[in-house]
Amino acid sequence: MREVTEVHDQYESVFDMRYAPEQRYQVRVRSDLFNPDCWDLWEPGTKQADHRRHRFVLIDEHVDRIIGDGIRAHLTAHDITYEIETIPSGEEHKTLETVGYLLSRAMKFQLLRRAEPIIVIGGGVTCDIAGVVASLLSKGTPYVVVPTTWVGMIDAGIAIKRAVNHEGKKNAIGAYHPARAVTIVPSLLATLPRDELRWGMAEVMKIAVIQDGPRLFEILESVDNLYDRLQHATPDGDPIAYEVLVRALRGMLSALRSNPHEDSLRRWVDFAHAVSGGWELAALAEGRHFPHGQAVSCEIALMVQLACQRGEFGPEDRDRVFTVMDSLELPTWDPLMLDYETLAKSLAGTARHRDGKQHLPIPQTIGSGMFLEDVTVPELRSSIEALTAAA
Amino acid sequence: MREVTEVHDQYESVFDMRYAPEQRYQVRVRSDLFNPDCWDLWEPGTKQADHRRHRFVLIDEHVDRIIGDGIRAHLTAHDITYEIETIPSGEEHKTLETVGYLLSRAMKFQLLRRAEPIIVIGGGVTCDIAGVVASLLSKGTPYVVVPTTWVGMIDAGIAIKRAVNHEGKKNAIGAYHPARAVTIVPSLLATLPRDELRWGMAEVMKIAVIQDGPRLFEILESVDNLYDRLQHATPDGDPIAYEVLVRALRGMLSALRSNPHEDSLRRWVDFAHAVSGGWELAALAEGRHFPHGQAVSCEIALMVQLACQRGEFGPEDRDRVFTVMDSLELPTWDPLMLDYETLAKSLAGTARHRDGKQHLPIPQTIGSGMFLEDVTVPELRSSIEALTAAA
Repeated sequence: MREVTEVHDQYESVFDMRYAPEQRYQVRVRSDLFNPDCWDLWEPGTKQADHRRHRFVLIDEHVDRIIGDGIRAHLTAHDITYEIETIPSGEEHKTLETVGYLLSRAMKFQLLRRAEPIIVIGGGVTCDIAGVVASLLSKGTPYVVVPTTWVGMIDAGIAIKRAVNHEGKKNAIGAYHPARAVTIVPSLLATLPRDELRWGMAEVMKIAVIQDGPRLFEILESVDNLYDRLQHATPDGDPIAYEVLVRALRGMLSALRSNPHEDSLRRWVDFAHAVSGGWELAALAEGRHFPHGQAVSCEIALMVQLACQRGEFGPEDRDRVFTVMDSLELPTWDPLMLDYETLAKSLAGTARHRDGKQHLPIPQTIGSGMFLEDVTVPELRSSIEALTAAA
Repeated sequence: MREVTEVHDQYESVFDMRYAPEQRYQVRVRSDLFNPDCWDLWEPGTKQADHRRHRFVLIDEHVDRIIGDGIRAHLTAHDITYEIETIPSGEEHKTLETVGYLLSRAMKFQLLRRAEPIIVIGGGVTCDIAGVVASLLSKGTPYVVVPTTWVGMIDAGIAIKRAVNHEGKKNAIGAYHPARAVTIVPSLLATLPRDELRWGMAEVMKIAVIQDGPRLFEILESVDNLYDRLQHATPDGDPIAYEVLVRALRGMLSALRSNPHEDSLRRWVDFAHAVSGGWELAALAEGRHFPHGQAVSCEIALMVQLACQRGEFGPEDRDRVFTVMDSLELPTWDPLMLDYETLAKSLAGTARHRDGKQHLPIPQTIGSGMFLEDVTVPELRSSIEALTAAA
């Protein structure tokens, strides 16, 4: 809808501007990225694109070592001229400085701003850095993403918001800038170490506990060897693992669909994302490796315990959650949780980020929940003490 | 419209995501910003805002010296706690480094991301820097603008796109992020030096020549002492000057309304913005002060002359344009135009920026035009030679 309403009174004029630019993106699950008939990587930005065989590629340095040769061969076989920039792994590289450097590289490569999407291949850190670069370059350049981690496939890679850290605050600056297309290649899961599957599984657990009703949780509860199965989660491979992938994907996409720019700050996908970011940054400051999924996993346990102590979530459901987390090797406690100063700062920061309200999701039954607005540090502390006693 | 379509075939899943987030902003012409009943400056970001009396203010350092005391008194009188950061004038400060510094300052001030719009007071450079800061902070923070220059009021201040320079390219990186509200206070024109009115008038002339039909041009052609009148362009002041303001405003807003995110790269408001940016940066590199309006003015003359040599625009209309430009003290020539190397680079850069097409607007009659796609450097050179001979 586009209109200008003009109101004149004796002294003043007011022009009301409204517009609603349509955003479109596709998430595709493909069995083989390098199939010669698969155009996902060099999809043109516009239908009119004449110059579409010129591409700037941003790839995680670790992923480059594993599938970089395949990417290069695939692009070369299709007569695409390209420049590949590697992005270092690790949260500490998610900075405005990295963004500025990559913007300079992209500008030197002289992309057409609408017709030549940037190709992005990597995990959450790569998607975030590259997404901020794409959002700023020429005030918005299209990009296509191939997430290469499990958490990338079901969360970070398909997200709309892209951000980097600033002034010690996680994801403090960025933009809402969805990829033109996200191509999920489950066979890439076979290349991943078990730990990466675990940390991605924390986000699956989040959706299972708060948002998807009983079904996803019941799959997680009933299936054996899920990590082995995931490494065969192709559409024509393990059907259980494929259902876990598609349900997790659909959970995230449905949250985005109804609230893409977070006009509402009450979001189920924020479950277990209130204080975990503070633990991550505290660990980073100590030089300790503490992945996002590990932090989320600990906060799931904390919020489940808190919901139970409030009488909102039954103790038998809590125990089911803890049992499944245990079987999936997801931690429910960490010494970092005892740093109550960080905890207090994180809780206050989250409320500020949600415009002064806490909007903390907790489960009520398996797969559905409610929001709390009055959680205090002593209450969190009491739940942490209960977890500590059980640990 | 929001939907997810899911298509399954034997091997693959595709999720189609579409959404259209509504953007709204108001442009208001006010006779008195400091009227106690005028809430424009501290308009809350959301209806639910509880904390709206806490504001981060970005103000051009020069403007601060002129009206800073009035701003402070006005905010204090309304119990608003604030922090004021001054922004240095000058294109050379429009960098990612300035943006990073101001983001740090804003974060230390701990704004609520939706409820406490940043207050921005200044000209085009200030609006650009502050707009990029607001677009990145918490992935998009609202802001309100009071443009303090003539070009700010009718062009830069009401624009949707905000950008800074990078790697020697003007406005290379940024975002589409309109202000929540723009308050135009014509009485501020009385505080401006004559030169600033002239450089803003280049953008008015642009709209008059290419877009507004005969009326705006005829006003410019018939009125005497327009600059003196502008300094009394309040709604209850000089009616001719007020009509010039409102017509120029409406011209810009109607271009934005139909094409807010530049899905079409054929834009009338790009008239005289193809090679002028290159002159500005060349002058900057030489340490010469060469305002945007001066560059635009020279390119208007160049494109009018070229349109005439092509036989698309009559010589009598060209002479009318040159006569009005002369009476408004707008230059039609500059020695920088003889730097044909810069000219060639700018033309190529503009075509690249428009996805490989030139899309160069030229006038056909006064107030309407067409687009050219096949302009060469020798053709531009021949038009510059004609202007040089006349200069």
